Amino acid sequence: MITGKTTLIAHIGYPTDHFKAPMIYNPWFESKGIDAVVMPMGVKPEDYVAALASIRKFTNLKGALITMPHKVTTMSLVDEASPTAHVAGACNALLVRPDGSLMGDQFDGLGFVLGLKRKGFVPAGKRALVVGSGGVGSAIAASLADAGVTELTLFDARPEGAEGLAQRLQKYFPQLQVSTGSNDPHGYDLVVNATPMGAQDGDPLPFDVSRLIPGTYVGEVVMKQTITPLLAEAQARQCPIQTGAEMLIEMIPAYLAFFGFGKATPEELMAASNKGKP
Amino acid sequence: MITGKTTLIAHIGYPTDHFKAPMIYNPWFESKGIDAVVMPMGVKPEDYVAALASIRKFTNLKGALITMPHKVTTMSLVDEASPTAHVAGACNALLVRPDGSLMGDQFDGLGFVLGLKRKGFVPAGKRALVVGSGGVGSAIAASLADAGVTELTLFDARPEGAEGLAQRLQKYFPQLQVSTGSNDPHGYDLVVNATPMGAQDGDPLPFDVSRLIPGTYVGEVVMKQTITPLLAEAQARQCPIQTGAEMLIEMIPAYLAFFGFGKATPEELMAASNKGKP
Repeated sequence: MITGKTTLIAHIGYPTDHFKAPMIYNPWFESKGIDAVVMPMGVKPEDYVAALASIRKFTNLKGALITMPHKVTTMSLVDEASPTAHVAGACNALLVRPDGSLMGDQFDGLGFVLGLKRKGFVPAGKRALVVGSGGVGSAIAASLADAGVTELTLFDARPEGAEGLAQRLQKYFPQLQVSTGSNDPHGYDLVVNATPMGAQDGDPLPFDVSRLIPGTYVGEVVMKQTITPLLAEAQARQCPIQTGAEMLIEMIPAYLAFFGFGKATPEELMAASNKGKP
Repeated sequence: MITGKTTLIAHIGYPTDHFKAPMIYNPWFESKGIDAVVMPMGVKPEDYVAALASIRKFTNLKGALITMPHKVTTMSLVDEASPTAHVAGACNALLVRPDGSLMGDQFDGLGFVLGLKRKGFVPAGKRALVVGSGGVGSAIAASLADAGVTELTLFDARPEGAEGLAQRLQKYFPQLQVSTGSNDPHGYDLVVNATPMGAQDGDPLPFDVSRLIPGTYVGEVVMKQTITPLLAEAQARQCPIQTGAEMLIEMIPAYLAFFGFGKATPEELMAASNKGKP
């Protein structure tokens, strides 16, 4: 039950239709008796700087979840950011500290890696392709590097996006072999779609799936549907998959701790969000 | 269950602790299967102009409830306002129209009058004192005039506040007898506290209750507690009362229609908000 004393976590992005976080966080808050709510706020790119300047001053706000298309922009709007956020070049979590300052962090990449590890994939020593060098792609690349991947290929429709990410990665992970410019998924241990392709009906696939070899892990960030066209193609080729929702659920305990709401397990979160469903 | 498709109604004011609207609207939305939510957003006066400029652009927002201390300021920020809002000099309801423009209205006054009528009080031909000439006091005065009160005394700690309201009233209700400057409640048919006094422990009473005569209706806008110190004193003097919550519940059907959510009755609203309570 929302009251005037309820702690507000803004969930800022655009469009909001596909947001899943409110249906995961809010039932967990309720199950734990925590008086807090995640509330979607749809903000277009051209309105974001002014909107964040206002939202951060809401007196009942504790912080914000930031999603597309604002994660990269947010880096220039925080007072401080974690090292991971700096490497990723993106924030997806904002905490309003007691003095009113904004601390930025990001958990997309960590969630993605934790999900893979839970499935038995060991990143150390592996070769990976990350398609899409925006906020989420950068975050995943940073966390994969941090988890010990030895070779990373980066691709973006905007080559300078992939180049910029490569430079940031090399700065923080000098041992990592980084290359850019190809989205051919052939022969990798792990291939990640970190573009929004698959969110709209009729979107082209983010890369040539016919080049996938059986056994390559295929990870997805699109969350509009559980099995995106890409994941369906991967499964048809005997490739193990990780869905966008699996990445999301893994990052939530990290977010909750960041906001000061204590510890949660993915199992607990799933149980709360499934309660009441048929 | 809040999702990314849920229609957002912002509830803007400061402080938010005493907000009651979320606990009335949200259970009614749920009982009707309407995917909408009233969400408190605490905004300080110095942040309000910028905050409203951003909030009105939220892509999942349909409108806003505006409460203290922003109701008067809001008049200068809307693209259009109803005649009642103009007389009251205050808005407590904002609708974002399809072209993005803001339409302002106010229902405090109408709610107050509908509540009185439901209790059998007939405003036509009566004499009333309204203490407080801010947004809610102005709204109540305007609606009382519209309902046929013949004499209205206005008092405000800032005399120019009462004078300004008197001038706006005379412009729209030239037959009305308006006087200003006294908060002596003696001999009126109706006396209204339209100040925030009573919201904080230790507040002085808004006028000298020892001067109340039995039978004078005493109305209250403070909603932090049902029976405020003023209402307790009034009851002790055989004065019938109207609580802030009663005013609130009467105005809600008007708000809901304004936002396009259809018809609601106070009984239905009360039943929904009481559901689940012990």
